[in-house]
Amino acid sequence: MAKGLTKRSVDYSQWYNELVMKADLAENSAVRGCMVIKPYGYAIWEKMQQALDKMFKDTGHQNAYFPLFIPKSYLSKEADHVEGFAKECAVVTHYRLKNDPDGKGVVVDPEAKLEEELIVRPTSETIIWSTYKNWIQSYRDLPIKCNQWANVVRWEMRTRLFLRTAEFLWQEGHTAHATKEEAMEETETMIQVYADFAEKFMGVPVVQGFKTANERFAGALETYTIEALMQDGKALQSGTSHFLGQNFAKAFDVKFAGKEGKEEYVWASSWGVSTRLMGALIMAHSDDYGLVLPPKLAPIQVAIVPIFKSEEDLAKISAVVEPIVAKLKDKGISVKFDDSDNRKPGWKFAQYELQGVPIRLAVGPRDIENNTAEVARRDTLTKEVVSMDDVDGYIAELLDTIQENIYQKALDFRTEKTTEVESYDEFKKVLEEKGGFILAHWDGSSETEQKIKEDTKATIRCIPLDGDKTPGKCMVTGKPSAQRVLFAKAY
Amino acid sequence: MAKGLTKRSVDYSQWYNELVMKADLAENSAVRGCMVIKPYGYAIWEKMQQALDKMFKDTGHQNAYFPLFIPKSYLSKEADHVEGFAKECAVVTHYRLKNDPDGKGVVVDPEAKLEEELIVRPTSETIIWSTYKNWIQSYRDLPIKCNQWANVVRWEMRTRLFLRTAEFLWQEGHTAHATKEEAMEETETMIQVYADFAEKFMGVPVVQGFKTANERFAGALETYTIEALMQDGKALQSGTSHFLGQNFAKAFDVKFAGKEGKEEYVWASSWGVSTRLMGALIMAHSDDYGLVLPPKLAPIQVAIVPIFKSEEDLAKISAVVEPIVAKLKDKGISVKFDDSDNRKPGWKFAQYELQGVPIRLAVGPRDIENNTAEVARRDTLTKEVVSMDDVDGYIAELLDTIQENIYQKALDFRTEKTTEVESYDEFKKVLEEKGGFILAHWDGSSETEQKIKEDTKATIRCIPLDGDKTPGKCMVTGKPSAQRVLFAKAY
Repeated sequence: MAKGLTKRSVDYSQWYNELVMKADLAENSAVRGCMVIKPYGYAIWEKMQQALDKMFKDTGHQNAYFPLFIPKSYLSKEADHVEGFAKECAVVTHYRLKNDPDGKGVVVDPEAKLEEELIVRPTSETIIWSTYKNWIQSYRDLPIKCNQWANVVRWEMRTRLFLRTAEFLWQEGHTAHATKEEAMEETETMIQVYADFAEKFMGVPVVQGFKTANERFAGALETYTIEALMQDGKALQSGTSHFLGQNFAKAFDVKFAGKEGKEEYVWASSWGVSTRLMGALIMAHSDDYGLVLPPKLAPIQVAIVPIFKSEEDLAKISAVVEPIVAKLKDKGISVKFDDSDNRKPGWKFAQYELQGVPIRLAVGPRDIENNTAEVARRDTLTKEVVSMDDVDGYIAELLDTIQENIYQKALDFRTEKTTEVESYDEFKKVLEEKGGFILAHWDGSSETEQKIKEDTKATIRCIPLDGDKTPGKCMVTGKPSAQRVLFAKAY
Repeated sequence: MAKGLTKRSVDYSQWYNELVMKADLAENSAVRGCMVIKPYGYAIWEKMQQALDKMFKDTGHQNAYFPLFIPKSYLSKEADHVEGFAKECAVVTHYRLKNDPDGKGVVVDPEAKLEEELIVRPTSETIIWSTYKNWIQSYRDLPIKCNQWANVVRWEMRTRLFLRTAEFLWQEGHTAHATKEEAMEETETMIQVYADFAEKFMGVPVVQGFKTANERFAGALETYTIEALMQDGKALQSGTSHFLGQNFAKAFDVKFAGKEGKEEYVWASSWGVSTRLMGALIMAHSDDYGLVLPPKLAPIQVAIVPIFKSEEDLAKISAVVEPIVAKLKDKGISVKFDDSDNRKPGWKFAQYELQGVPIRLAVGPRDIENNTAEVARRDTLTKEVVSMDDVDGYIAELLDTIQENIYQKALDFRTEKTTEVESYDEFKKVLEEKGGFILAHWDGSSETEQKIKEDTKATIRCIPLDGDKTPGKCMVTGKPSAQRVLFAKAY
């Protein structure tokens, strides 16, 4: 395993924290709860952004930008929303500092107090719907389908890099529609986009479903979610899409005139994913040697390490490797030929392993003689000697294979870790001994949901959209259940 | 001219404000001084970001992300910096709201007061150098060349969309080097990158130079700038690159061990451009009909408007236009075929004119008969009838021509509006009657610089890097001057 990296089996949580730091993904900053996303971590996030942004545009969305600050009174306009978001947030009360009269640094200027405090956005429904009010008069102005890439702040008390930080980066889509059906369709389209992204790019299989009333977004009538399973058997909510009904339109008085001139409140959706996805990506695939990245999100897809003792050897190797680098780049593959001489090959191997580079090539003098290269796969940790003749074609195919294998491995793990239980005793036993996803019948009441959570710390992750819809009896109360729901302990 | 758009000759400032709103670029939000960047405006900004980001990466930079908040004490660590930035900023003092005991909305929870106030970043030197301290031990860790795309807040009292807003979007590069020479070289490289971007993408000619001591960035030893000339004869500072010496390294105690083990403070640069560039772009080229966009930054490069009365006509036109749309897209040209039937062609023409779409095609039944299309250029407002046979090749070439013409027009304007003066009287007369850039001799003293500013409101925009370096005598004091410097009234 990687030097100094705690094994997953010893302490999964510790392994995660160390890996995020050692692989140069992120670190804690001097500001409590706020992280620094380091260049290598940010490069992965950029790949995620690019893929998602394209998917958003392909589904008819445009990007825009709305203010960082929200007037305090706006939060109160939607009753559930304020309950959910007003509590832990960063409050701007002043707009000026002045020199400390004692001569030590600067102090807040009491003269510069804001009339109304500003909240650093924890999410932007309120400021956006106050804006949409001016954009929408008639049905001709609809739909509006905006997305924003932004930072948001929620004053979390217990933070963990990527998974839960006070400031995080995300995108938030906010759409406005003339009909309920259209807003619902948008909500469903976007959870499907998220599921596709998770599975096809991140290689993370997800369960799509909707949240129970308790777990809904504050202000939503329905919250769709994608839930992923981590290697420690815990669930990670990875993206949500909300049907907001007319709640925000009513709170901000946003009406439109229909074709017949009748005025009606506008229908809304909102949806978001965040840098939390980085946490999901790391935890779903990585191992005791470090990160394992799916090729589609790897900043470096192929690292080539020359094995040389003399400048002459290196020159010979470079002469062979450089045309291969060019061919790989032509195929759109990102490749790093690491010919630096201040680190030994062994150190480089370990480094690329730690950083999850999908394919590593080693090329030494004997390879040059034999017209071969040693190709190592990060996902399986296997090596193969390959002819140089079609090494670029081999690599292009291998990247697809690795992408597929990473997904399949995570899917197999999830299948193995998903259990249907019939009784509450069985539920507790499986949760305790095996963990993972548990499918069980539930009577649909908040009381039962709450009792299970208090007894076991497991929550209903979602009411799955797909899968077995056979009715049954609640494992706790014996009352009727429409279908099995998905339970797990969660991040 | 565009409906309801004030003419530039009547009120340039009013023209600008109206144009930003009418062309759907941005608007003021409910939060004082903060703007909403609307989808069309944001699409232009995205094009700018993409081009700049590529230029940064091509010059060896990586993106990263640092916290939004800066502990108040950090600002005080660099003496000049605190003077420049601590004054007008957004101060977070609390981290929680609670229900108003009177039952009306929410109030700040006095129990949740932060021990140390947090400043919403006005720029990130301090938080970044406090981070670099942990990243840098030896010369092997250098250079560090990070860029961040972020929002920043400066509590401006008088705001104008894009030109001066409390919150704005920007990028800030922060680099760390082992030697003074390398840091200086970086500072110069980046002002050159900005100049290239302004000229090649925005079509805006700029004067490169360095700022006088008075006008330097707070904490910098040298500030390089690019200065652009707007159509009203005023200058717009469009990008700056700062040589920070060892100031921030000393403030945050960032040292590195050299090859021989000797410890030394690290050398720094920082550089940034912001959404202010949108203001420069709008003001440099646009006219009384609306926006004029250089093709390289236009979200829609070609708009095709069918002229039809019946569905049958439209079907015929579409059959001819659609293959052309496909050919243009193959060439990487962004094209919109606007076949909507809820607006008349005249309305569409005016709309695309207002939004600065570089080329508009109109295709009617007679064009179909004649195998032609009417091609209209936004920059010259001229029209030409072109054969359909090679219309895609014609358009591709025309886009290059327009890009070049827009730049040339701005360059000719600047040449015409740049005046060398010999005396202070002449200076005042030219400034009053002609405006624009004035090249004059200055004795190098802050007193003279200040006097000129107080007398005339003109400031030294920069000490140009290129051009005439002949010494002379200060137009005000008659004292020796090393070279002419660039004066103008400025935004």
